[in-house]
Amino acid sequence: MRRHNRTVLLRRLHIEGPCTRASLAAELGLNRSTIKALVDGLAESGVVEERVPRQRSGAGRPSLLVLPQAHAAVVLAVDIRVEQVSIALVGLGGEILGRNSWNLRVRTREPAEVATHVVDSALLLAADLGVRMVAAGISVPGVVRRSDGFVHEAPNLHWTDVPLGDRLGSVFDMPIMVGNDAELGALAEHLRGSARGSSDAVYVTADVGVGGGVISDGSALRGTAGYLGELGHMVVNPAGRSCYCGSRGCWETEVGERALCRVLGLREGAPRGSVVAELRALAADPAQVRSRLGEFADWLEVGLVNVVNVLGPELVVLGDLFTALPASLIAEVAESVRERSLVSRAVGGTRIVTSTLGADVTLLGAAELAFESVLGAV
Amino acid sequence: MRRHNRTVLLRRLHIEGPCTRASLAAELGLNRSTIKALVDGLAESGVVEERVPRQRSGAGRPSLLVLPQAHAAVVLAVDIRVEQVSIALVGLGGEILGRNSWNLRVRTREPAEVATHVVDSALLLAADLGVRMVAAGISVPGVVRRSDGFVHEAPNLHWTDVPLGDRLGSVFDMPIMVGNDAELGALAEHLRGSARGSSDAVYVTADVGVGGGVISDGSALRGTAGYLGELGHMVVNPAGRSCYCGSRGCWETEVGERALCRVLGLREGAPRGSVVAELRALAADPAQVRSRLGEFADWLEVGLVNVVNVLGPELVVLGDLFTALPASLIAEVAESVRERSLVSRAVGGTRIVTSTLGADVTLLGAAELAFESVLGAV
Repeated sequence: MRRHNRTVLLRRLHIEGPCTRASLAAELGLNRSTIKALVDGLAESGVVEERVPRQRSGAGRPSLLVLPQAHAAVVLAVDIRVEQVSIALVGLGGEILGRNSWNLRVRTREPAEVATHVVDSALLLAADLGVRMVAAGISVPGVVRRSDGFVHEAPNLHWTDVPLGDRLGSVFDMPIMVGNDAELGALAEHLRGSARGSSDAVYVTADVGVGGGVISDGSALRGTAGYLGELGHMVVNPAGRSCYCGSRGCWETEVGERALCRVLGLREGAPRGSVVAELRALAADPAQVRSRLGEFADWLEVGLVNVVNVLGPELVVLGDLFTALPASLIAEVAESVRERSLVSRAVGGTRIVTSTLGADVTLLGAAELAFESVLGAV
Repeated sequence: MRRHNRTVLLRRLHIEGPCTRASLAAELGLNRSTIKALVDGLAESGVVEERVPRQRSGAGRPSLLVLPQAHAAVVLAVDIRVEQVSIALVGLGGEILGRNSWNLRVRTREPAEVATHVVDSALLLAADLGVRMVAAGISVPGVVRRSDGFVHEAPNLHWTDVPLGDRLGSVFDMPIMVGNDAELGALAEHLRGSARGSSDAVYVTADVGVGGGVISDGSALRGTAGYLGELGHMVVNPAGRSCYCGSRGCWETEVGERALCRVLGLREGAPRGSVVAELRALAADPAQVRSRLGEFADWLEVGLVNVVNVLGPELVVLGDLFTALPASLIAEVAESVRERSLVSRAVGGTRIVTSTLGADVTLLGAAELAFESVLGAV
């Protein structure tokens, strides 16, 4: 019981930040003496620090402010993308303490070498910061088995059957958790982003691939054997282009980065910077938005109608490349989706918004995946 | 604790049927004296009966067989369809004790009158059988809020905003649970049909409408505010026919009963019997199957690819009208879905089968919904 309360309190501080003892007692429904015992224990082990709050409210002795100590639990977060790998050391409370990234156009994408470089880089960074890592969370743009971090297929990386979890586990003596990029984006949005407080939300993201993560009734939806569904391989255009997955007209094929390059008149595989620059320029000219992005918007709409009708979320958060689309286009698509979705009407209008967590969303999700496995043991 | 064990034991007997004390002890991980106390208590209240098993195995005193007594808990199951309403009284153990149905082409579909007739009919049936109803489960082909049985929209019945749960609750002094037909079909398949023992399964059914229920990680998936997703309104053919829902080329529009009538050359709204007869005749002529049902099969395939890629089930069960399709067609579609679905390949090949529970699947699901609410109190 005490262990359970300690974990709940720690998770509260980790996710929501510093808080007074009094508020902790009220929020968690525990009495003041229980809170005191828990906080004293955590303070003794250096996991939290207590301070007199700067702003005092009312008379009397102020309730002490409890602050999580970043160094008390540091996790390694790894975001493997098609174009680059980012690693970060993230402290208790969610602050990024240090980071490092490298371009995969320059370095090889070969799985064993990516893994080796992640290890070397993480050890260097940890030594440099003088911290000890207690767990790792790794995001991969592909079909991942959660139980042991086996990557079944990460097509845009050309990875097949990579035992990534086992490989890193043989080097690091700590829990290694591997997740799908969209699933971890959803986790980050749920804990720290636009989907906070929403129990039924979907996060949809576009990089080279398109993927989605689902929060259902407050927790992440998993498929069979830990394999998550792949929203990007929902067919939206049966007469569309062939997809490497063996299907045709997948959402990814119609609204992924390559499709965006095509409609913008850029070569497929153009650097992300030029795609974003082109979208920014376009946003300034509303007439152009509809004429050049109209068909793209139609496929985005069909996929979103399906997401809403099949999964029934109250909120859809669009991430990564979608955040660079003109706001007017997103608003128009969101409105059409609400109009033509039976389920949206039932739930009183599904909200469709763009992510505000920026480029670090997946990295933050990977960190939270790692924290999930260790918060009970800090 | 004792109450919890009692409910678990009762649910085991209700779902799996009669069982010896020794097997109950082994299955539930309880010791023999605990089982004895629980069974004695249930026998005293007339909920179970004990018998010496007919087939004795080995020497020594045989373990007594524990049988659930149907009359100990009788629920009302109601299956409201577009064409007809069926009601049944179902006893503990799942046996149908008596039933009654009426055609909605003859009687009105007006919600208040349907509700009144359900009440009258159920009371007559209960009096006739000499049983007392303890809960009701009602299946509606539409978007239903589970919390209070509010029917937001049941388009093929032309029902909008019907407080069905409250209406029946004001007459019956017992729990009234209302669910979506496909969701309840999924529940029945999960508890008593092809999806027994499967923790990630999808049930897809076609009547006039097409719908689906999802079992994820062993329990039913719910959308926001208890509104389930509507698989039938996933867009599979963006260039397809307008759907009443405000969208276009929905799965329901392409593979529902009306679509089947069109491809079979029957008038839309032809009686179910003639649709099934036509399909049976066709099944005898393999060359005709592909030429006449080819396009229909393509849309079935696109929808199933999406179901598998989005939800990642290990098993898809096809129900109702789909069970009348030629077996060769189902096998061909299943094979194509496995070939072109990334997620199916990851999970080792999603199985796609037809339901074996027959026409009562939804009624059985409605009964289980009712039992869920009372098994703890029997």
